[in-house]
Amino acid sequence: MMSKQNIDDLFEGLSNGNIVVLSKAITIIESKLSDNQIIADELLKKCLPNTGKSIRIGISGVPGAGKSSLIESLGAELLSRNHKIAILTIDPSSSKTKGSILGDKTRMEKLVQNPNVFIRPTATGEHLGGVASKTRETIFLCEVAGFDIIIVETVGVGQSEIMVHSMVDFFLYVQVAGAGDELQGIKKGIMEISDAIVVNKSDGANVSNTLQTKQILENALHLSNTANELWQTKVLTCSALENRGIIDIWLLIQQYVDIMKSNQSFYIKRKKQRDDWFYEVLDQTIKNKFYDNKSVKESIANQLNLIKENKITPYDAANFLWRLVEIEPH
Amino acid sequence: MMSKQNIDDLFEGLSNGNIVVLSKAITIIESKLSDNQIIADELLKKCLPNTGKSIRIGISGVPGAGKSSLIESLGAELLSRNHKIAILTIDPSSSKTKGSILGDKTRMEKLVQNPNVFIRPTATGEHLGGVASKTRETIFLCEVAGFDIIIVETVGVGQSEIMVHSMVDFFLYVQVAGAGDELQGIKKGIMEISDAIVVNKSDGANVSNTLQTKQILENALHLSNTANELWQTKVLTCSALENRGIIDIWLLIQQYVDIMKSNQSFYIKRKKQRDDWFYEVLDQTIKNKFYDNKSVKESIANQLNLIKENKITPYDAANFLWRLVEIEPH
Repeated sequence: MMSKQNIDDLFEGLSNGNIVVLSKAITIIESKLSDNQIIADELLKKCLPNTGKSIRIGISGVPGAGKSSLIESLGAELLSRNHKIAILTIDPSSSKTKGSILGDKTRMEKLVQNPNVFIRPTATGEHLGGVASKTRETIFLCEVAGFDIIIVETVGVGQSEIMVHSMVDFFLYVQVAGAGDELQGIKKGIMEISDAIVVNKSDGANVSNTLQTKQILENALHLSNTANELWQTKVLTCSALENRGIIDIWLLIQQYVDIMKSNQSFYIKRKKQRDDWFYEVLDQTIKNKFYDNKSVKESIANQLNLIKENKITPYDAANFLWRLVEIEPH
Repeated sequence: MMSKQNIDDLFEGLSNGNIVVLSKAITIIESKLSDNQIIADELLKKCLPNTGKSIRIGISGVPGAGKSSLIESLGAELLSRNHKIAILTIDPSSSKTKGSILGDKTRMEKLVQNPNVFIRPTATGEHLGGVASKTRETIFLCEVAGFDIIIVETVGVGQSEIMVHSMVDFFLYVQVAGAGDELQGIKKGIMEISDAIVVNKSDGANVSNTLQTKQILENALHLSNTANELWQTKVLTCSALENRGIIDIWLLIQQYVDIMKSNQSFYIKRKKQRDDWFYEVLDQTIKNKFYDNKSVKESIANQLNLIKENKITPYDAANFLWRLVEIEPH
C-alpha cells in the first residue's frame, strides 16, 4: 500500500501539471481495489480545495454529428488562446461489449500531439446509458493539473447526457441538419438541458439545410422550457470541416460564463452539482456496503428461493434483508 | 386502509378480467402511499402464482419511426386471432416535464375502442432514460386479468430499452430507412438486444430505401454480437400505413417463442428476469430505508456542510453515515 509520502508526491506531481502523474492518479481513482480507494480518497481530499478554476463544457450529440471534428477545431482555437484543454470522452452506446469505443484517440489526431492537451476516454458503467462513475473526480484532478478548460464528450443516447449535464458549467448539443419529424421527438429532453445547440456540417450543399434546421430548433425552443431563467438556449451553425463558426461557439460560452458569474448563478449551480455528487457517492456506498454485509450475504439465496416458490414477493424479501442490517431504532 | 376482504375483491375482479379493477389495481401498485404499498404487496402475492401465461413483447424505436401505427396494425391482427392485448407505454424522453407524453391514447384510436384491448401509459422515473418502476408489476396484473399478449412500448433513448428488454420475452426494434452513418452508431447497443428489427414505412417511393436499410442492418448484424446463441436477430420490412408485413412480425414472434420454449431457454430467461426484478426492488428498498433512517436524517446536513468546507470528501461522509445505520458485525 502507498504511504502518505507517496500521496504527497502524487499531489505535487499533479500540481506541477505532470501528465504521467495525472494519468496514474486517474487510474487510481477509477480502481476498484480497496487499497487504491483509500489513496484516492486521501488524494481527493488534498485536491478538492484547489479545484473549480476551469470552465467545464459538456458536448453531446448523436453518432455522426461530428463531435470529434468539432472538438478538434474548437481545441485548436482554444490552444491558440493559450488555454490548456482536458478532453474526457464517455461512450455508453454498447451494453454487451464493455470497452469504450471512444478509446481511439486518433479521432482527434491534431490535438493528441499537443502537450497542452490531455485526452482520456473514461470507462462506462454497466448499462446502456450508464456513465463513467468517476468522471467528476477526473475533472477535479485535471483542474489541479492546471487544465483550465475541461470538455466532457458523450454520445447522445439519453441518460449519459443528464449525468454529464450535472457535472459541467455549459452543455452544448451538436446537431446535424434533419427533417422536422426527427428533430421533434428525440431532442425533447435534450433541448431542455442544452445551453446551446450547434448545427454542424454547415458546408457545401448542406448550408441551406442547416440554416433551416437552425430555424426549426429556434422555433421549438421558443415553445419549450428553457435551460434556465437567465439564459435562453442559443442555436448556432458551424462547419468543423471548414473551421467556420467555431470561434462563435467559444465566444458564446464566454458570454454565458460572464453572465452566470455576474449574478452568482455560476457558483450556485456548482454548489448544487457538488451536493448531487455527494448523493451519487452515498447511493453507491450504501449499495456496496449492504451487499457486503455478512448477514445479507448469508440470507439472500434463501430469499430468492422463497420468491421462486411464490411464498414471498420481492418486496417482502427486500424488507426482511434490510431488517438484518439496520440498527433497531431506540 | 383496505381490509383483507377488499384485497380479495380486487383479486377476484382482476381474475374476472374487470378492466376498471385492473386500472384501480395498477394505480394502487404505482402509489407511493405506504398504506397502498401494503395492499399492493398483498395483492401481488396473490397474483404471482397466476402470472406468466402471456407473451411479453417490447417495442422500441426513435420518435417518428411509426411505433404507434405499427402497434395499431399489429394489434388489429392479434384481435382478429382472438387475443387480448395490453399495451403499456413508457416515455422517458422528457426530464423536466414529468408527465408522460404518451398519455395521449388517441394515437391508437382504432384499438382504444375495443374491449379486448387495454392501453395504459405508465409514469416514468426522475431521469431522462428512467423507466417506470412498476411496469413489471403492471405486466403481472394484466396477465391475471387475462391479457395474453402484453406489449411494452418505449421511445428509443437508451436506458429505457435495457429496462424493457429485461422484462419481455421478445424485443422488437422499429427502424426507419436511413443513411448508413446514422444507423451505424446509435443502434450498436440496440442491435445487441433486439430479437428482430423491422424497417417501417416501407411504402410508396420509400420501398427501395427500406430494402437497402434492411440489407445494411443485416450486414451489421452479421458482424456484431447476436442477442443469443439460439436465435439470430432477424430484419423485416413493413408498412404500418398499408398494413403490409405486419402478419410476418407476428409469425416471427411465434416462431421465436416456439423455439425458445422447446429448448427451455424461454423459461430460463423468465427466471433470470424474476431475479433481476428482485435486485431492482432490493436496490430501491435499501435506498428508501436508508434515507428514512432517523440517525441519517439527523446527520446528513452536517455532513454536507463538512464537504462544503473541504474538511471531508463525499466518500468520508458516505462511510460515516453508513456506520450510523449498520449493526456492528459480531
